[in-house]
Amino acid sequence: RINSDRLWDSIMEMAKIGPGIAGGNNRQTLTDEDGEGRRLFKRWCEAAGLEMGLDEMGTMFARREGTDPDLPPVYVGSHLDTQPTGGKYDGVLGVLGGLEIVRSLNELGIKTKHPIVVTNWTNEEGARFAPAMMASGVFAGVLDQADVYSHVDKDGKKFGEELERIGWKGTEKVGARQIHAFFELHIEQGPILEDEGIDIGVVTHGQGLKWLQVTLTGREAHTGSTPMPKRRNAGLGMARVIELVHEIAMHYQPDAVGAVGHMEVYPNSRNIIAGRTVFTIDIRSPEKEVLDAMDARIREGIDTICEALDIKYQIEQVGHFDPVAFDAGCVKAVRDAAERLGYTHRNIVSGAGHDACWINRVAPTAMVMCPCVDGLSHNEAEEITKEWAAAGADVLFHAVVETAVI
Amino acid sequence: RINSDRLWDSIMEMAKIGPGIAGGNNRQTLTDEDGEGRRLFKRWCEAAGLEMGLDEMGTMFARREGTDPDLPPVYVGSHLDTQPTGGKYDGVLGVLGGLEIVRSLNELGIKTKHPIVVTNWTNEEGARFAPAMMASGVFAGVLDQADVYSHVDKDGKKFGEELERIGWKGTEKVGARQIHAFFELHIEQGPILEDEGIDIGVVTHGQGLKWLQVTLTGREAHTGSTPMPKRRNAGLGMARVIELVHEIAMHYQPDAVGAVGHMEVYPNSRNIIAGRTVFTIDIRSPEKEVLDAMDARIREGIDTICEALDIKYQIEQVGHFDPVAFDAGCVKAVRDAAERLGYTHRNIVSGAGHDACWINRVAPTAMVMCPCVDGLSHNEAEEITKEWAAAGADVLFHAVVETAVI
Ligand SMILES: NC(=O)NCCC(=O)O
Ligand SMILES: NC(=O)NCCC(=O)O
Repeated sequence: RINSDRLWDSIMEMAKIGPGIAGGNNRQTLTDEDGEGRRLFKRWCEAAGLEMGLDEMGTMFARREGTDPDLPPVYVGSHLDTQPTGGKYDGVLGVLGGLEIVRSLNELGIKTKHPIVVTNWTNEEGARFAPAMMASGVFAGVLDQADVYSHVDKDGKKFGEELERIGWKGTEKVGARQIHAFFELHIEQGPILEDEGIDIGVVTHGQGLKWLQVTLTGREAHTGSTPMPKRRNAGLGMARVIELVHEIAMHYQPDAVGAVGHMEVYPNSRNIIAGRTVFTIDIRSPEKEVLDAMDARIREGIDTICEALDIKYQIEQVGHFDPVAFDAGCVKAVRDAAERLGYTHRNIVSGAGHDACWINRVAPTAMVMCPCVDGLSHNEAEEITKEWAAAGADVLFHAVVETAVI
Repeated sequence: RINSDRLWDSIMEMAKIGPGIAGGNNRQTLTDEDGEGRRLFKRWCEAAGLEMGLDEMGTMFARREGTDPDLPPVYVGSHLDTQPTGGKYDGVLGVLGGLEIVRSLNELGIKTKHPIVVTNWTNEEGARFAPAMMASGVFAGVLDQADVYSHVDKDGKKFGEELERIGWKGTEKVGARQIHAFFELHIEQGPILEDEGIDIGVVTHGQGLKWLQVTLTGREAHTGSTPMPKRRNAGLGMARVIELVHEIAMHYQPDAVGAVGHMEVYPNSRNIIAGRTVFTIDIRSPEKEVLDAMDARIREGIDTICEALDIKYQIEQVGHFDPVAFDAGCVKAVRDAAERLGYTHRNIVSGAGHDACWINRVAPTAMVMCPCVDGLSHNEAEEITKEWAAAGADVLFHAVVETAVI
C-alpha cells in the first residue's frame, strides 16, 4: 500500500500554491501560479529520481526507468491546473497519486519491466482557454496544435504565448510517445460513490460532451423609453436559451445533463437592453445518440427563440468529445486491484471529461475514482477524506504495477 | 430663434471627448473624460460671461445675471455624462441647448428679469454608480448625500472619492438654491415623435421606475458530473427571473416596460454551474399602481422560482421614483412656445427618467422633447437631425425667456 500521509501532505503542499478565497484553489492553466505548481512538482519528481520530459503543449512527463529498455512505459497522471474557484483534489490527486506510486516503489525497492511515467497534462479544465483536456486532445490527434495555440482567454491573451511566457513550452513533439497503458485516478465529482458508501469507482465509460458558444445580437436600446414591441433583447434571448437547455436535458433524464455556466452581456448597464450576449452551453450524455439529439434540438430551439425576438445568432462548437468506452483490459486491472485490496467497488460512468478520455483513443486506458463529499467539485468547498484518497491511490498503485510488470 | 449651426457645432465638439467605439460616446460620470467635458463646458460658459457655481455633488451652475436682483433664477439644463456605449445627444443636447439660449440672448442683447442658470447635473445615467439622476435626487432631498457618496462602481471605487479625484467636488451645499422654474430639453429616446412626424413633444408626465438588484445564491458544481436533481443553479434562476420580468411587463401593456440589462455570473466558467448571480431588474410605468403591482408580482415570482430551484435570494431596491406630473404652468409655456413658433407638437409621457423628474418636486418644471432616429438611445448609433435639435432648442428658448421675463 502507498503511504497515505505522504500523499496527503503533498496534496496540501500543492494547495498552498494559487490559493482561492474560500479554502480551494485558483491555479488556472498558464498563470504564474500554474508555473509555480509545475516547479514544485518537478522538484518532487527529481527528488524521486525521475527524469522530466516536456512537450510543445507544456505537458510534463516524469519517467522512472524500467528494467527492459525495449518496453513502452505505463503512464499515470492527471492535471495540476484548476478552475478559477476550484478544489484541492480535482486533477491534483491523480498527478500526486502517480508520484506517490513511484515514491512507494522506490521505498520498497521494486523495479518494473516497463518504465512508469507520471504525467501532468496542460489545460485540462478549459476554464481559461476552451476546450477542456486540451493537451491530451492534441496528444491524441483530435485537436490541432496550431489552432489551440491561437485560442484566447477573456483578456485576449493567446494560449501559445502564455505557455511561452510562463516558461513551460517544451521542444518535444506532441503525441510522439508510445504508451503501453494509461491510468488516471480522479475524484468522482458526483455523488454516487458517497451516497452508496462505496470506496472505488471502476470507470467503464465516460459521457460525451458538446460545448456550444452562442452569440446573440439584438439591439442596444433604452430600458425605459423603448416600447416592448420595439425591443430586440439579446438578454431575454439568452434567458430563453438557458431554459431551453434545461428542458432538453430534463427530457432525456437520466441520460443527460445540460447547463450554461458562462455568460457575457454587452454593454451590461442597468438601463440598456442587452445588444449582445455571448454564452456557452454545456451538454453531456453517455449515449452518442442522445448527445446528438440534444444538439439538434438546441439549434432548432435557438432558431425559434431568435426569430420570435428578432435577434440574430451564431453558434460555434468550442468543445466536443464522444462518449468513451475504456479499455477492457485496463478496466479489469482496476477492478482486480480493488478486489484484491478488499475495497468495495462498482462500475461507474464518468460524468466529467478527463485526459484519460482522449488518451483512450491512442492507448489502452482506464480510470479509478474515489468519492468526494456531497459530490461537490468545481467548487472551492470540494472535499475528500485521507482514507478515500489512500484507497484510490492503492488501487491505482496495484493496477499500474501489475500492468508495468515486476 | 437660436443659432442652430452653433448649437450643432458645440454638440459635435463635446462628442470628441470620450469617444465610443462605434460613433457614440463613453463619457461615464466621474471619469477623466467627464472631467474633460466639464472643463470644455466651463470654458464655453466663461466665454459667454456666465459665472460658474459648483455644489458638493459636482453639479455645475452657470449663471447669467437678471435685471431684478431679488428674483430667483430660471434653470435650464440636463447632463453631460453618458452610458458606457452612449449617444452624442442624450443629456448633451439639454445642457448645450441651455448654453445656446444664453449665447443667443447675448447676441440679441436681451436681458431677462430673472437670472438664467445653465446646469449640468452629475451622474444622470446611473450606469457607473446607481441610482440614475443622482445629483438632482440629492438636490431634491430624496437621496441622501452621505449615502450616495459611498456607492461603488464595478471596481469598488466610491462615488465620493471619484468626485474628488476628478477635481469637481464643490463647496456649495446641495439643494440650497431657490429655483423659479426648471426646463429640460431632451431627445425622446423612444419612437413616437419620429413615427408620427411631430417636431416637439410637450412632456406632461414621466413614468415611474424601480431598480431591483437581485442576488441569487445556489451552489457551484460541476456541469458534467452533478446530476440534474442535485443542482442548485443560480444561472437558471436568473434566466427564469428575466423571463418573469418580461411576462409581467407584457401583462400590463401598454402601461409598462421591464427588462434586465445588468447581469453578473460567478464564477462564470463554462463547466461550473453558477453558484451566484447578481442582476438588476428595471421596471417602469406611468401608473403608480401598475409599478407597485409589478414590483409585488416580481417579488412573489422570485420566491416561487427560488423555492423550486432550492436557491436563496436577496432583493435590494437600488433606484426608485414615482410617476411624475409636470407643472401645468411650465408645460403650458412649452406648448405655447411650440405653437407660437409653428412647430407641430403633441403631449408625451417620458419613458426615461430625467433630472427634471426630481427637480419637479421642489420647483415648477417641464420638459421639451425632440425626436431621435428609430427611437434609439443608450446606443452609440443614437442619431438626431440638426433641424430637430434646432426646433427643440427654439421651443426651450421661448419657454425659458417667457418664464424669465424680458
Ligand atoms: N474533470 C474535469 O472537471 N474536467 C474538466 C472538463 C469537464 O468539464 O468535464
Ligand atoms: N434619460 C436617461 O436615459 N436617463 C437615465 C435614467 C433612466 O434609465 O431613465
